[in-house]
Amino acid sequence: MEPVYVTGVGMTRFGTLDESIIELAEKAAVEAMRDSNSIEHKFDYAIVGSQNPEEFTGQGHLSTVLADRLGIVPAGATRVETGPSAGSSAFEEAVALVGAGLASLVLVIGVEKMSGVDRGAASRIIAKMISLESEARYGATPAALAALVARRYMHDYGLTRNDLSLIPVKAHKNGAKNPLAHFQSEVTVDKVNTARIVSDPLTLYDCSPTSDGAAAVVVASEKVVRALGSPTEPVRVLGIGHATDYHAVQHRLSLTSLRATVVAAENAFRMARIKPKDLDVCELHDAFSILELIDMEDIGLAKPGEAIELVKNGATQVDGSIPVNTTGGLKARGHPTGATGVAQIRDTVLQLRGSAPKGLQVRDAEIGLTHNIGGFGNNMVVSILRRQ
Amino acid sequence: MEPVYVTGVGMTRFGTLDESIIELAEKAAVEAMRDSNSIEHKFDYAIVGSQNPEEFTGQGHLSTVLADRLGIVPAGATRVETGPSAGSSAFEEAVALVGAGLASLVLVIGVEKMSGVDRGAASRIIAKMISLESEARYGATPAALAALVARRYMHDYGLTRNDLSLIPVKAHKNGAKNPLAHFQSEVTVDKVNTARIVSDPLTLYDCSPTSDGAAAVVVASEKVVRALGSPTEPVRVLGIGHATDYHAVQHRLSLTSLRATVVAAENAFRMARIKPKDLDVCELHDAFSILELIDMEDIGLAKPGEAIELVKNGATQVDGSIPVNTTGGLKARGHPTGATGVAQIRDTVLQLRGSAPKGLQVRDAEIGLTHNIGGFGNNMVVSILRRQ
Repeated sequence: MEPVYVTGVGMTRFGTLDESIIELAEKAAVEAMRDSNSIEHKFDYAIVGSQNPEEFTGQGHLSTVLADRLGIVPAGATRVETGPSAGSSAFEEAVALVGAGLASLVLVIGVEKMSGVDRGAASRIIAKMISLESEARYGATPAALAALVARRYMHDYGLTRNDLSLIPVKAHKNGAKNPLAHFQSEVTVDKVNTARIVSDPLTLYDCSPTSDGAAAVVVASEKVVRALGSPTEPVRVLGIGHATDYHAVQHRLSLTSLRATVVAAENAFRMARIKPKDLDVCELHDAFSILELIDMEDIGLAKPGEAIELVKNGATQVDGSIPVNTTGGLKARGHPTGATGVAQIRDTVLQLRGSAPKGLQVRDAEIGLTHNIGGFGNNMVVSILRRQ
Repeated sequence: MEPVYVTGVGMTRFGTLDESIIELAEKAAVEAMRDSNSIEHKFDYAIVGSQNPEEFTGQGHLSTVLADRLGIVPAGATRVETGPSAGSSAFEEAVALVGAGLASLVLVIGVEKMSGVDRGAASRIIAKMISLESEARYGATPAALAALVARRYMHDYGLTRNDLSLIPVKAHKNGAKNPLAHFQSEVTVDKVNTARIVSDPLTLYDCSPTSDGAAAVVVASEKVVRALGSPTEPVRVLGIGHATDYHAVQHRLSLTSLRATVVAAENAFRMARIKPKDLDVCELHDAFSILELIDMEDIGLAKPGEAIELVKNGATQVDGSIPVNTTGGLKARGHPTGATGVAQIRDTVLQLRGSAPKGLQVRDAEIGLTHNIGGFGNNMVVSILRRQ
């Protein structure tokens, strides 16, 4: 594969926002174009990750509309959808296009506008990502499946409610310092423990919110990166892996390990020629608090059942040995589904540039990993980035 | 780019069908896997092109569900959407993944199930691909825009109603010999001229139908093609181009030439290092009869206003010098939107293998082109294939 770089990033605030899906995407995209000095250059493609703009907002033909709105016609424009990992899958297509030599400058946008429909409609739209035949038909929701997983993990490894609450506490602590996060206030273990139950044992603070927001990155070939003379150092894409699992959770071999993460991470590490211990910073898909522990173990940062030790001893804090979700993760940064994967790339690029928000910068971060989940526990994309 | 091959193809009948979207996709995919001898091999990815499965059928998370159903977990699985060119854009992503060396065996599926909703709902879903602000809001439909284009073309170039009717007559003549076509009966110029008006001057026979159906192709690297020992000769992907135009027709420079086709075709020809005169067979996006003429001119088969001469002198017939839409095109083969681009690839591969249906084989076809339109006149993908 030809070398591929991320040379510009942009992002809106995540939250419940007034802007339309088009306005959000445009804002993030223009910032990424400016950041990479590419605003007057010819883009070959725009790749847009969005889970379900038609049903959340009524907007169809999203990639074409955005190519026009952003003034990059006649660039090829494609929307990519893999559930909530749509943003990472859009990034993957951009990497493939540049890596194959089919493109040299590609705009990647991840966007979702989820607040335009009422809560019931939003739940029905989101439920389309779990199995109708084996799960949704019986009233299961993503939160209910996460609760099953949490119960099993507690049973197998002795995880306590107080332990689990350390995850949202860290997320909110970091989110409080992230000016673009959906939630910017801290929470305590007690507040997490005693919040409204969403699906026992998970409380409100174990679950990521539905959010509006967009993020964008500019992906380019080595030649174009040099030609752009971007104001900031480019970051190279070292590895990428993408894997699925059986759709229904009941068909899987384990409740406490997500096989698709294991495979996607193995593929990404093999391509990058590095090992988990080489990572300096990680953005993991913590749609539910229990997933952050499982993600860490599946990626190879800890043995099964032992991730909580890294949380307890501070290793996953911003100043720890392997900081996880320094910008608040899905829990506090927010989770506009199609935007999340691109936001993870953007936030990791800021870390590798040394320009993370105040109080969130990991010291001398050189290699970062992002991990994004599509349905409930399947369709994972793992990307590894390195500072040049 | 690494060499990329199409080594297996499959397709369902197109029409108003009983099967679900999942059953249709599965049927085409299994046929393509069998055809390429790859059914027991490890697929790296499944890329699925579908315009709007959520609203046409209620089915979400299509790529993940299909990876599971087809037994190719843990393959990466992605859905791609560019309106009705979704199938070609899925093929493009597969080409990029193999071309970059990120994958060596990829299943591409194009599928749409449009008959599950009533005609009014189908029209509203399809209308999401045209501009809301400039077109749909005022009652414009894709057919109305095509009628505007036809009127202008008739005015500028003196095209007559009888001339235009030759396009659907040829489509139905070919479709009558295609066992998988939606419509398998011939029509006459008089029948086209006097059919119900859809949008003046276009009648029912100027317009492609809404259909159900799926097509699939297997895309592979050179090494894998050799390892598979496929029963049929592989076909190489010589070139691919993808381009957009301004979303609203009123913002474009011309009504009678689609700039996105011109750009996409130029890019594909440059990559393939061939010229339009080197083509032996073409599948063009004739969603409306007038588009077949415009497509021919934009690709470079005829000068502006002169494509009709190639139709009149028989050049676009199966035994002509540049056969167009030998399997009936969108008009007669049918137009399950997300499936169309993959069906075009499949039908072109059959031509290059010399195994087109009886009466439809182009003699000694070596190079073929497919052209697929996304919205109304934008988001085009052009692919060029060559027999090895």
